Amino acid sequence: MLKLKERCACRLSQTRMSVFPRAAHRRTLACRAMLPLGVPISVLSDSYKATHFLQYPKAQKMVAYGEFRQGFNKDKADTRMVSYGIRYLVENYIAKPWTKEDVEMAEAFYKTHMSPAYTPFPFPRPLFEKFIRENNGYFPVKLEALPEGTCIHARVPVYQITATGEYSPLCTFLETLLTMIWYPTSVATLSRRSRDVVEASFARTSDGGPASPLVEGRLVDFGFRGCTSVEQSIIGGCAHLLSFKSSDTMSAAFYAQFKLNGGRPVGQSIPATEHSVMTSWPTEAAAMNNMIDNFGTGIYACVMDSYDYCKALSEVLPSVAARKVDRGGYLVLRPDSGDPTEAVLMALNAADKVFGSVRNSKGFKVIQGCGVIQGDGIDLTTMEKIAQAIEEAGFAADNVSYGMGGGLLQKVNRDTMSFATKLCHIIYEDGRPADIMKQPQTDTGKFSLPGVLAVKRVGGVPTVFPADSGEVAQHENLLRLVYDKGPLEGVWDDFDTVRARLAAEWSALPRTADNISASLREKVRQQMALRGKVPALAR
Amino acid sequence: MLKLKERCACRLSQTRMSVFPRAAHRRTLACRAMLPLGVPISVLSDSYKATHFLQYPKAQKMVAYGEFRQGFNKDKADTRMVSYGIRYLVENYIAKPWTKEDVEMAEAFYKTHMSPAYTPFPFPRPLFEKFIRENNGYFPVKLEALPEGTCIHARVPVYQITATGEYSPLCTFLETLLTMIWYPTSVATLSRRSRDVVEASFARTSDGGPASPLVEGRLVDFGFRGCTSVEQSIIGGCAHLLSFKSSDTMSAAFYAQFKLNGGRPVGQSIPATEHSVMTSWPTEAAAMNNMIDNFGTGIYACVMDSYDYCKALSEVLPSVAARKVDRGGYLVLRPDSGDPTEAVLMALNAADKVFGSVRNSKGFKVIQGCGVIQGDGIDLTTMEKIAQAIEEAGFAADNVSYGMGGGLLQKVNRDTMSFATKLCHIIYEDGRPADIMKQPQTDTGKFSLPGVLAVKRVGGVPTVFPADSGEVAQHENLLRLVYDKGPLEGVWDDFDTVRARLAAEWSALPRTADNISASLREKVRQQMALRGKVPALAR
Repeated sequence: MLKLKERCACRLSQTRMSVFPRAAHRRTLACRAMLPLGVPISVLSDSYKATHFLQYPKAQKMVAYGEFRQGFNKDKADTRMVSYGIRYLVENYIAKPWTKEDVEMAEAFYKTHMSPAYTPFPFPRPLFEKFIRENNGYFPVKLEALPEGTCIHARVPVYQITATGEYSPLCTFLETLLTMIWYPTSVATLSRRSRDVVEASFARTSDGGPASPLVEGRLVDFGFRGCTSVEQSIIGGCAHLLSFKSSDTMSAAFYAQFKLNGGRPVGQSIPATEHSVMTSWPTEAAAMNNMIDNFGTGIYACVMDSYDYCKALSEVLPSVAARKVDRGGYLVLRPDSGDPTEAVLMALNAADKVFGSVRNSKGFKVIQGCGVIQGDGIDLTTMEKIAQAIEEAGFAADNVSYGMGGGLLQKVNRDTMSFATKLCHIIYEDGRPADIMKQPQTDTGKFSLPGVLAVKRVGGVPTVFPADSGEVAQHENLLRLVYDKGPLEGVWDDFDTVRARLAAEWSALPRTADNISASLREKVRQQMALRGKVPALAR
Repeated sequence: MLKLKERCACRLSQTRMSVFPRAAHRRTLACRAMLPLGVPISVLSDSYKATHFLQYPKAQKMVAYGEFRQGFNKDKADTRMVSYGIRYLVENYIAKPWTKEDVEMAEAFYKTHMSPAYTPFPFPRPLFEKFIRENNGYFPVKLEALPEGTCIHARVPVYQITATGEYSPLCTFLETLLTMIWYPTSVATLSRRSRDVVEASFARTSDGGPASPLVEGRLVDFGFRGCTSVEQSIIGGCAHLLSFKSSDTMSAAFYAQFKLNGGRPVGQSIPATEHSVMTSWPTEAAAMNNMIDNFGTGIYACVMDSYDYCKALSEVLPSVAARKVDRGGYLVLRPDSGDPTEAVLMALNAADKVFGSVRNSKGFKVIQGCGVIQGDGIDLTTMEKIAQAIEEAGFAADNVSYGMGGGLLQKVNRDTMSFATKLCHIIYEDGRPADIMKQPQTDTGKFSLPGVLAVKRVGGVPTVFPADSGEVAQHENLLRLVYDKGPLEGVWDDFDTVRARLAAEWSALPRTADNISASLREKVRQQMALRGKVPALAR
């Protein structure tokens, strides 16, 4: 791996953008360490972190790591997760060179940040200036991370930060930014768990089974507007696209295609109405006829509850049926209110009546040229409920898609899988090393792992080892260097590769596993003996 | 108001940045319509919206508006909210000029976006090219919005979009972006509701009462790492800073100060330890002594649960007490696990024992030079519970602060106050006008308001009127033009002004109010007569 300290980090991601005009390159390249919002990277941290350089003991080296402490929504029966999102953080923040101006801007800010009375707040100005001067502005830490899309269980470190020498006290300054990996990993895990629901439904009721090409289109990302910000939509939307190809979140589909996949398409969608479209016409039939005229040979969707959902199914739909059939395409009916399960069944029955259906080899009905997408009130639970209900009503999974909005991109949080970054190792000024372990007796689930860590597959299961036990050879360690006091070349896989990794690893991984090695367990025991009680280890 | 079509929209927000070096200006100015992430504004929408230009009937004019349909967390007893966040969206997205390159990038994307098989997806290329050619790249709609910080009840439009002539079908293209106002408004409302809890607690137990200068520091934003993205932290963190001055989310404190407040300080914090600091020392006492040595004359905080919270309070704290007292500052103890209420009471009792307390005029104890901040598990409910519990234990509100992380910046969603944008008016190609109203019988709470809207104070309450009833004079209308096919000058108030508006309006507004005018109610009745049933209006 070649170090690229001299080159702007932007270039790394720019190389894949060659379909675009040169001016676009220039503009992106112009944004170095400073965000376009005018906020310098020197304040992209929690306030208290700016004061920590004065709070750590003098040290030669400090190491910290980040981990999810629990399965999705505390699920103990399935603690699998999809580690994802480190590339975004490194490319857009960590690997951006700082400039003197960034420090000047920080100075202007910190000088009135202390409470009360807006007096000066301490910050590590000399250290910032040192790495700007001596390291081309690149933040002076080493960062290891799991390959994007790696499937793991809770408690496996997803990244590890090392800072040495004078820069040791900066070890956790980036924690605030890096901790944000909780988000893409949570969405990627939720999306993949949703795919399990879809696959199971196809396995039971569809001729194509779980490998049907329809599966990858069956959960559509409707979450853009339910995001807090455009940046979130990109990060979360890409995480969803790891398990599905269907997305209306174009910010993410664009980013995944052109920034992460060499221009090869990633996300896709279909023409569809919204209420504003349906209500802008004098009648819903007029709106639907216009859809048929414009898009009737392909797949297209109409929302059906603008006024009276029952009437739309029983009167409007039959009134446009002949025109629809004549064009030959596939119409997707979208309920958008009421009980989700009931709404889907109503639409299936109405469509069956109007367009007819055939029975597949498993005995389930497949409606001719028409299906349903439920995009209101969808989460993992309602998806499962609907899949069950349509099966009981005799309909194949082929007939139904799901749209998940806020449920997919916003209704997760750092507690969903309990993410935290903690210090694990220090070498003091005098050369004395110490493994470090938080072990609060008030919440034994919040203990952290002691010592520098490594991750190796044992029986296919990514398992955590002490890095100093000699059990993990460098080439076996899943924690790979992704940043070394500057960006590295060749550390990122393209999006298709990440998708393939996730697809292969997820199903191969048992739902739960004992993933703490005996040697690490022993180290934990030693730490406990130093401090207190037994934390809640897997066994 | 002067139109500034010829000038880059970035300049508007740049004028306040004059404390910074010129190069910083240049870099920000370089980012026009394209995000630094390389995603053009031409795809910052839901996929289906790109197809709507083919789905609307031919029209001379179309109008849509955005509203929150319910109070915070469906609270029917208090439907107040703080309208906030339109400035961010306008300055950073809506008012950015598009370029030909943005359209070329869109073309490259849309040409493989159709499902299945990655075929071409329709998008309004001719309309995009037209406004780039004829309107300097500015999106050709008119946008009205409430002044930032305006306190309203649910159902008051927070913005209204108008598109005319050939551009009518673009009326709702920006809906995806604009709808994101749900987020800052939800956080601003949650933060202000939290302040109500703090003020009530001070009113009951503190000498200073609800107007105590301590109040504005009593809810600290701990939410940066719990955000999904840096951009979210800025948007949500600023919303919190409207009601409090205390924040560790420096991205937001910086943005509020330098981009929204002419450089005048907005947010503040104190030096504080984290677990990594406490555990990096051989003992917690050593870590605390170091804090006292470095920050002991001011306010500073130590987290107390790294190993054994009880022991830290009963043994470590007394062991550093003399040194602490000697320095004269204010030590804040931070529990971080266990039951929040219990943890706070334990710390208060321990501090009382170690440092002593005095009784204030209301009979409550104020500990000498020491207090507690609870930053784990905090939301509105736990805040109220703790405030109640410390009162029952005889401690004044002066002793306790709160830190809210994910609870403040992430655990809200578009359903928290039910935000939606809907079309309300159209003038068809032939000149025939029609008011438009979504009224799903399957969820009467989801009805929208018909016709072009205006907002006027009636008895202090922002009330919704039909714009065509003649009841609202232009100068009375709270919906003010903030973008008119290009940025406008002088439409934004600085942050201090917005803070003051919120402070004045929130307390003056009754918790609930009938805010739909009789004339709009009549219009709703007429629409219902056309379509169906009575929606769930306030009366």
